[in-house]
Amino acid sequence: MTPAASGTASAAPSTVVVLAPPPQHLVDAVVASALAEDAPWGDITCQALIDPDLRTTAAITAREPGILCGTTAIEAAMRLTDERISVTFPRPDGTRFDAGDTIADISGPASGILTAERTALNIAQRLSGIATMTKAFVDAVDGAPARIVDTRKTTPGLRVLERWAVRCGGGSNHRSSLSDAVMVKDNHLALLALDGPEALTQALRDVRSRLPHTVHVEVEVDRLEQIGPVLAAGVDTIMLDNFSLDDLAEGVRVIGGRALVEASGNVRLDTVAAIAATGVDIISAGALTHSVRSLDLGLDFVLQPDRTGSRA
Amino acid sequence: MTPAASGTASAAPSTVVVLAPPPQHLVDAVVASALAEDAPWGDITCQALIDPDLRTTAAITAREPGILCGTTAIEAAMRLTDERISVTFPRPDGTRFDAGDTIADISGPASGILTAERTALNIAQRLSGIATMTKAFVDAVDGAPARIVDTRKTTPGLRVLERWAVRCGGGSNHRSSLSDAVMVKDNHLALLALDGPEALTQALRDVRSRLPHTVHVEVEVDRLEQIGPVLAAGVDTIMLDNFSLDDLAEGVRVIGGRALVEASGNVRLDTVAAIAATGVDIISAGALTHSVRSLDLGLDFVLQPDRTGSRA
Amino acid sequence: MTPAASGTASAAPSTVVVLAPPPQHLVDAVVASALAEDAPWGDITCQALIDPDLRTTAAITAREPGILCGTTAIEAAMRLTDERISVTFPRPDGTRFDAGDTIADISGPASGILTAERTALNIAQRLSGIATMTKAFVDAVDGAPARIVDTRKTTPGLRVLERWAVRCGGGSNHRSSLSDAVMVKDNHLALLALDGPEALTQALRDVRSRLPHTVHVEVEVDRLEQIGPVLAAGVDTIMLDNFSLDDLAEGVRVIGGRALVEASGNVRLDTVAAIAATGVDIISAGALTHSVRSLDLGLDFVLQPDRTGSRA
Amino acid sequence: MTPAASGTASAAPSTVVVLAPPPQHLVDAVVASALAEDAPWGDITCQALIDPDLRTTAAITAREPGILCGTTAIEAAMRLTDERISVTFPRPDGTRFDAGDTIADISGPASGILTAERTALNIAQRLSGIATMTKAFVDAVDGAPARIVDTRKTTPGLRVLERWAVRCGGGSNHRSSLSDAVMVKDNHLALLALDGPEALTQALRDVRSRLPHTVHVEVEVDRLEQIGPVLAAGVDTIMLDNFSLDDLAEGVRVIGGRALVEASGNVRLDTVAAIAATGVDIISAGALTHSVRSLDLGLDFVLQPDRTGSRA
Amino acid sequence: MTPAASGTASAAPSTVVVLAPPPQHLVDAVVASALAEDAPWGDITCQALIDPDLRTTAAITAREPGILCGTTAIEAAMRLTDERISVTFPRPDGTRFDAGDTIADISGPASGILTAERTALNIAQRLSGIATMTKAFVDAVDGAPARIVDTRKTTPGLRVLERWAVRCGGGSNHRSSLSDAVMVKDNHLALLALDGPEALTQALRDVRSRLPHTVHVEVEVDRLEQIGPVLAAGVDTIMLDNFSLDDLAEGVRVIGGRALVEASGNVRLDTVAAIAATGVDIISAGALTHSVRSLDLGLDFVLQPDRTGSRA
Amino acid sequence: MTPAASGTASAAPSTVVVLAPPPQHLVDAVVASALAEDAPWGDITCQALIDPDLRTTAAITAREPGILCGTTAIEAAMRLTDERISVTFPRPDGTRFDAGDTIADISGPASGILTAERTALNIAQRLSGIATMTKAFVDAVDGAPARIVDTRKTTPGLRVLERWAVRCGGGSNHRSSLSDAVMVKDNHLALLALDGPEALTQALRDVRSRLPHTVHVEVEVDRLEQIGPVLAAGVDTIMLDNFSLDDLAEGVRVIGGRALVEASGNVRLDTVAAIAATGVDIISAGALTHSVRSLDLGLDFVLQPDRTGSRA
Repeated sequence: MTPAASGTASAAPSTVVVLAPPPQHLVDAVVASALAEDAPWGDITCQALIDPDLRTTAAITAREPGILCGTTAIEAAMRLTDERISVTFPRPDGTRFDAGDTIADISGPASGILTAERTALNIAQRLSGIATMTKAFVDAVDGAPARIVDTRKTTPGLRVLERWAVRCGGGSNHRSSLSDAVMVKDNHLALLALDGPEALTQALRDVRSRLPHTVHVEVEVDRLEQIGPVLAAGVDTIMLDNFSLDDLAEGVRVIGGRALVEASGNVRLDTVAAIAATGVDIISAGALTHSVRSLDLGLDFVLQPDRTGSRA
Repeated sequence: MTPAASGTASAAPSTVVVLAPPPQHLVDAVVASALAEDAPWGDITCQALIDPDLRTTAAITAREPGILCGTTAIEAAMRLTDERISVTFPRPDGTRFDAGDTIADISGPASGILTAERTALNIAQRLSGIATMTKAFVDAVDGAPARIVDTRKTTPGLRVLERWAVRCGGGSNHRSSLSDAVMVKDNHLALLALDGPEALTQALRDVRSRLPHTVHVEVEVDRLEQIGPVLAAGVDTIMLDNFSLDDLAEGVRVIGGRALVEASGNVRLDTVAAIAATGVDIISAGALTHSVRSLDLGLDFVLQPDRTGSRA
Repeated sequence: MTPAASGTASAAPSTVVVLAPPPQHLVDAVVASALAEDAPWGDITCQALIDPDLRTTAAITAREPGILCGTTAIEAAMRLTDERISVTFPRPDGTRFDAGDTIADISGPASGILTAERTALNIAQRLSGIATMTKAFVDAVDGAPARIVDTRKTTPGLRVLERWAVRCGGGSNHRSSLSDAVMVKDNHLALLALDGPEALTQALRDVRSRLPHTVHVEVEVDRLEQIGPVLAAGVDTIMLDNFSLDDLAEGVRVIGGRALVEASGNVRLDTVAAIAATGVDIISAGALTHSVRSLDLGLDFVLQPDRTGSRA
Repeated sequence: MTPAASGTASAAPSTVVVLAPPPQHLVDAVVASALAEDAPWGDITCQALIDPDLRTTAAITAREPGILCGTTAIEAAMRLTDERISVTFPRPDGTRFDAGDTIADISGPASGILTAERTALNIAQRLSGIATMTKAFVDAVDGAPARIVDTRKTTPGLRVLERWAVRCGGGSNHRSSLSDAVMVKDNHLALLALDGPEALTQALRDVRSRLPHTVHVEVEVDRLEQIGPVLAAGVDTIMLDNFSLDDLAEGVRVIGGRALVEASGNVRLDTVAAIAATGVDIISAGALTHSVRSLDLGLDFVLQPDRTGSRA
Repeated sequence: MTPAASGTASAAPSTVVVLAPPPQHLVDAVVASALAEDAPWGDITCQALIDPDLRTTAAITAREPGILCGTTAIEAAMRLTDERISVTFPRPDGTRFDAGDTIADISGPASGILTAERTALNIAQRLSGIATMTKAFVDAVDGAPARIVDTRKTTPGLRVLERWAVRCGGGSNHRSSLSDAVMVKDNHLALLALDGPEALTQALRDVRSRLPHTVHVEVEVDRLEQIGPVLAAGVDTIMLDNFSLDDLAEGVRVIGGRALVEASGNVRLDTVAAIAATGVDIISAGALTHSVRSLDLGLDFVLQPDRTGSRA
Repeated sequence: MTPAASGTASAAPSTVVVLAPPPQHLVDAVVASALAEDAPWGDITCQALIDPDLRTTAAITAREPGILCGTTAIEAAMRLTDERISVTFPRPDGTRFDAGDTIADISGPASGILTAERTALNIAQRLSGIATMTKAFVDAVDGAPARIVDTRKTTPGLRVLERWAVRCGGGSNHRSSLSDAVMVKDNHLALLALDGPEALTQALRDVRSRLPHTVHVEVEVDRLEQIGPVLAAGVDTIMLDNFSLDDLAEGVRVIGGRALVEASGNVRLDTVAAIAATGVDIISAGALTHSVRSLDLGLDFVLQPDRTGSRA
């Protein structure tokens, strides 16, 4: 359930500067499942070819620059395949690397390293891709106080890791799931068939009264006129969906700090700065996770295999 | 374990033209896990706002053109959330759609439809993205006999679905995992520290002798000189890794039909036709699955909710 | 995943008046686990004695008055044991019953009803005990706006059900778990070794900056002087822990609506009205769930077994 | 699967005096499930606030007197949260403690201790409540040979632990489940529609013939006249259900050692001594587990956090 | 969790004559696991070759005589593969069949029938082999009252099914597992290093005092002198291990009905009658389950496939 | 996931001579499941009788000669029961032993050794039985190049272990499951209702085109005339099912090396040499796994228990 002593992947900073990484047992669960998918009854190439006690040294190296995320997954893939493998990481998650930089130093039985390689890289490449993309958005709004946040458009099964990748890129997270915060969207409101703005205000007040006091209530609006009755209900965040830049600015003015303001829709690298300039508090971008380009990382042997190694 | 009678997602063609879709229970397992991740203890917005018996009609519509994949996952997301939801699909997986086309017609309790929406779309958008990308590669080599195949660079947990998406796009699959076929790569060979070409030939013969006779043996080579000793061992496929176009053509000539020839490395939409023209049998492209852009699909209500609906 | 057609346990009200019950699949998971614990390889008394197709009619009856909670669990225990059993409920969860009132009408194979009996009663007795106790607290503060809320002192494995029982009794829920809202307690603050009130304010602001904007931040204070720096950080709720009535009133005055106020500690049936009278918004009571007296419910056969029943 | 070397929770006595505690892997399974329920994706308060390597020392202290049960669960909660936490217990399960006594000494990373605190206490408070209640019953019959035993009215999911708590209080256990011993109750007999006492005797003999010879057969009777035919069948235990004290004594006399005699119904602290005086062998009390008051235990830091601690 | 309506596998007799079969959900769990092992990602032969909606009719036929066991497993294998398959059984478990007799009539999609065939046969052949072997032992002791019972030498994972097979063959079951009855063997006694027969008697009395009163206590003895002190402790069964026929008879005489007598060791078809003649109550034979010859059953198509069948 | 340091069960040979054993985590999963089946809530005999810290030394000894398989399972059974138990093996899997030879030397807590004994022996006896039977078949064809291979007639849940046992006996494996290779049988072909030999050839070519290039295609034929059209399709292996010896020889001649030739049906110890002499490449025998006689192995204490041992 916890990292082997040999792994230094989760070395913690002396002060907490971002929300800490996901608990290791959640990382392990994802990685174990991925390993089982990739080798349901073993790696038959290694089983037929490689002495299971033959040891070697390997490195994972970046083939393009980016922001690192996924060290705990790399460590887990190696450890869960063979606990005799040890991994160290020259730089922690969240830091920038260049092409050619070493991401991980690995030593141990060669067979296990080869078996774990693809799983380790598949996850780390994707997470680093997300972190790198997020960092680009964060850099694009540099100077503005708006947060760049993710959405629920994550890869099935990887949400807890992909949210961490967004944080590694300097972004923030939106709600975790449908269970921990309320988001009232246009489809919900359509179903209520409300009879005027007072009915909308009352419906939202009723929602609040049914929920734990700890639940955040966010409401999506499609046009400026909806802001008034929503605000009257005392919600926590108002999402302005697909608003023009002018309307965003007007929305921020109307809301006047009485709720957080989130901008959503058409958030791209070339539009995000202008959106941030409208004064919104939060900018959510599905593109951070739903259309990720994996970063190119590779594993190579760096030392001759040690034929004297034994399973002492 | 099997689709509800109301779902017509898996309506089968009268003749088998491609390898059939994955068994429904495997699709259900992925979808159930995704639903649990997205609503671990329910959808509190719907729980606080929507009468659970209020029924409506909705449609999933394409917002850009592409090749469809994911109907069985959409059906499962709806059914596993509320078995009273029924879904029909105007076109099967593997067919082309245009922007504006309806992908799915959905009717049943509105609350369940909203809860399942994001999971259904997350999966279908990704799979349709893969199918569409694959189709582009397949079209690019039109006229050449080479197969476009996937790799093990799939999303952790989604391999069985992503392989189906590749088939929907007209591509073929490579091995499923490390457990069902042998692929000897440069790192394996480096570990063996073989003493000359005869030793390589003998090592590969030994591998074959240890494996079930049903296991396919593929060997990766980095340069033309390696082909001879590999061929002498009687392998099934030789992968020419990162070969120039000239070397690919020469490799095909040398092998002369005694093994299948796979080209790998730098396979892009703008290079794949030239690679195919060298005469290789198989072209594998990690980009089919590791850097997917999700296709834009959306769910909208198409009818007024039916307030007389009851849970009969 | 969903109730059999024969069960009417989850008949929904025409308007949503409280947060809806937990999703049926979560109830089913708890009940299935309890059934497996109570009959890991079958009910050998019934297996040795009772014709598995012999049908009968039975009723669950209250032996003391109370507030009902647990119908979905009763229905699940019967259905998961034998899907041929049907159950109807004369009154829904959240309503009051008297001694002698019928809670459930059951018909189907006698063997399955007997096998499921203990599990059904164990859960419903406990949940109705919680609902009844909660109602007593809610009634005791009648006229005051304060919410009666639960704590994390729930039975391991039953939290989702026990939270529903609190709602059935007219109470509200606190956060679900350590994962969905922040509660900063004295032990946390002690660890920070903060250097004065400004440091406390800053530490709490830092916490907020690291969290999703949807996360509620609550801080526990032990004495009035702590309120100022906590309030300055802009937290959502301040918990006044073990305050005297006078200090509670003073706390409410100082906070002045800038945060919700929660009273905690020494909350008993004979103290809760006075606590509510201080003007606090929320009163949390561990006793709602940690020391529950199960209500007395019993199952009896009401008809002669029908020897002509067959498994047609 | 087994306790960390640092835990001394399961230090065994040099002689076996009661049935040993449940296997550690069963305790671990319950605790792991409880931890997952309480922190499905981590403790976000600690993640946002506390350096994960900051170490401290803490103690669990009794705030009222009682009989201890739950040390293995406390140890498991800490170890499964962070294996660097070590716990020692000044007194073993089954011993008496006073208000103010230390129950557990804990040292390790403060963050993990805080995350595990509530789960550890929830379980240990409940189990110690059961042990303390059981001890009161056992003390009440002091001098009489009757065993005080539990029933199947345990908390779903916690049966194996609650049975241990009963043993820690000096009680004994009844059957584990419906699968390991036979109990024929009035509802079973009603279904058989037996035609007179001989038919009853024969039916019970038939039951015995169908079962493994290792299965204990117990039969519940409601009135003295039923004892004869039951006894004639050669059963192992006869339960006298809701008998008056006089009838209990008469039942004991009639049975005359040819079967064990169990008294059930209306077993309370103020009635148990008189029941025991009738000479019954076994007294079963659902109240031991179905209406438990959790004992008050608390966790406090006892040392300043050690800021030099590192994850060496 | 329960059989599809189309299956008549579990049609129950009108009177209970043997301990009923294992609960269907336990059978389903074993079968589902076996199906997953045999087709982890589908049956690629059928997926590549057979229209999934093509329907046919098939029969499972005996190729040698025997006693039937496994109908619920055959039904489950078919249903869990495709719920559109229906199965009927001309004779129930526990009845004799001849070579050529039909065991099961199957109709539905041909693809699913072929996929489930091997799993269905693997289980039914093994269980019928056990039932047939057990019947031979039971017939061999015909006229003697001794029970033929199984041991814990069952196939890992199949115990609940193999115990049912023993019952189908007319045998009885021994304890289920290490958890539900006590068996004190020579190795246990050796560890106690007891100081004489009185110490043995006392040790066994102590064991009884620590256990629930429902737990059966059986003790293995190696020689006649051990019987006295064991009997003095009041145990339930004494196992005479590897005794000669004369010593068995003498053991029966010495015990004189004060405990059940079990014979164990060298129990073969050619010795069992003589063992039974010694008057022992129980004869346990590991050979019933540890060295089973699978009975020869085969599946054949009996009708032309119906090409007009559709998945309506 | 990996063996404890104390186990030397999996000491690997310095060169790879057979396909390596299954990954330890797969062995552990089977063993953990078997342990749970045999002691769902502990070993109550040991719990009631044996000091859990009492240590001893034991050995597993062969009581008849054979070929060893199952050391990793023995090690796992001991380790997963109590990680303080250590096991060493004088000879590795795949070697021959005589009656009286020591198979395993075990030391550690006596209670855990006794609890694990039956599970360890049940598995190792079965696997050694398979290895020994396989070796007899392999020896019988000595001098002929034909491989002796297993079938899918394995014990549900144990396939991965039983395939290893076949390899330990000198045999080879057939395909793992329905998912990793194609086997077209008579029932498949009957469903296709093909119109003549050309249609058969074309159907098989179509199959190949739908499959990954790594999938082996084997076709079963019942008579010599079928060979031609099958061969024309370019399949990998042709299985001659229930052919006479003459027809086998003729089949080998006709195929002439253009596909592998497998003989199936009526493969017994007394027929296998003649079958091999026909020149077939592969001989498959269901009897290797479906009707195994467990080899007789026993566990005995070899040293006096050490009463000074403590759980330091």
